[in-house]
Amino acid sequence: MNIGVLGTGIVGETIATALTEKGYNVRMGSRTANNEKAAAWVKQSNDRATQGDFNDAAAFGEIVFVCLNGANALHAIEQIHGDSAEGKIIIDITNPLDFSRGMPPQIVDGLGNSNSLSEEIQRALPGANVVKTLNTVNYKLMVDAREVNNGDHHLFICGNNADAKNKVEHFLVDNFHWKAGHVIDLGGIEAARTMEAIVPFWVMVYRSLGTPLFNFKIVK
Amino acid sequence: MNIGVLGTGIVGETIATALTEKGYNVRMGSRTANNEKAAAWVKQSNDRATQGDFNDAAAFGEIVFVCLNGANALHAIEQIHGDSAEGKIIIDITNPLDFSRGMPPQIVDGLGNSNSLSEEIQRALPGANVVKTLNTVNYKLMVDAREVNNGDHHLFICGNNADAKNKVEHFLVDNFHWKAGHVIDLGGIEAARTMEAIVPFWVMVYRSLGTPLFNFKIVK
Repeated sequence: MNIGVLGTGIVGETIATALTEKGYNVRMGSRTANNEKAAAWVKQSNDRATQGDFNDAAAFGEIVFVCLNGANALHAIEQIHGDSAEGKIIIDITNPLDFSRGMPPQIVDGLGNSNSLSEEIQRALPGANVVKTLNTVNYKLMVDAREVNNGDHHLFICGNNADAKNKVEHFLVDNFHWKAGHVIDLGGIEAARTMEAIVPFWVMVYRSLGTPLFNFKIVK
Repeated sequence: MNIGVLGTGIVGETIATALTEKGYNVRMGSRTANNEKAAAWVKQSNDRATQGDFNDAAAFGEIVFVCLNGANALHAIEQIHGDSAEGKIIIDITNPLDFSRGMPPQIVDGLGNSNSLSEEIQRALPGANVVKTLNTVNYKLMVDAREVNNGDHHLFICGNNADAKNKVEHFLVDNFHWKAGHVIDLGGIEAARTMEAIVPFWVMVYRSLGTPLFNFKIVK
């Protein structure tokens, strides 16, 4: 299967590397087709790794991971042609955080409470099935849930298309060691407001614990 | 010890009843000194239960629980004279939620992201030590942490005064069966922004699970 990964930061690189090692063909997308960080990643990876611009990576993937800086994500998404994303599953991991105003971090103006980055991405790519998940955990945990408490903790997911959410859950279980049944469906894409809203809280817990390698387990 | 409880709803009543049963003298405060719901609570409770207006209840308590509807809480707090709250511990349980615009609930305009209800209460009562806690769990769990997973889960706390937070943690451990060490300190009162911000997420998890009797356990 072909996967697109938008973003060359630590999150994008971690996911892209994990997937090439699992045998997927991965194209890392960035603003330009010859981005240096993407080129370095291709060079150090196996031959299933390629690079391109944002639209190339989206067109390449059956599944496309959005691993962009939240404050800039929409500019990147605008570079994707509608037909490149048509019918695709877009896994949105981004968080619209603003650390410039001190702690706790804030949600970027206009993207919180009655809106979310995921909803904006869904509006920008109406033919795609945007699924929000993974945004509430550290990048090391994203690709290997066993990094914390032997995988016994929870992930959250939302999106408008039930089949797409189901496929994403299976993808996470099959590739990243998330436990089946530990991915909690919060509903339509508007629930992304609440999944993005808990990340400033996550940052405060991180600060208190002194490690980003933790997660929330829902107990009853 | 004397305790003030502001609010006559299910949260206030549950806390007030739990505390009279533990042997505390509790004065329930409402807008008027002869509020019917407060009168009914006094009548059904033991002789340690009394009622008064918001200022009476605040002046009465060494510790004052704020159990008000978040959207109206500040109007109630304005009725408290500064000297009634001077040096007191104010435990703020409120959430500024707006359910009028559908799901997920939103944070009341002006009280989220760069602000919080707790910070507004602290500003309104500068001589008091406002401590935010308990706002992230169902009222049944507030007064008995054992209602979920034998008490093995986490509560969060913040406030500007370390001694006040320490006293509140001990109070919760001694009276409401919260486990020592399971109350995570997130810092100064500005962290209340993040504790209030996770409640719309809590509502979506509640909707997904079908029960409010759950909590978050931080696992590493």
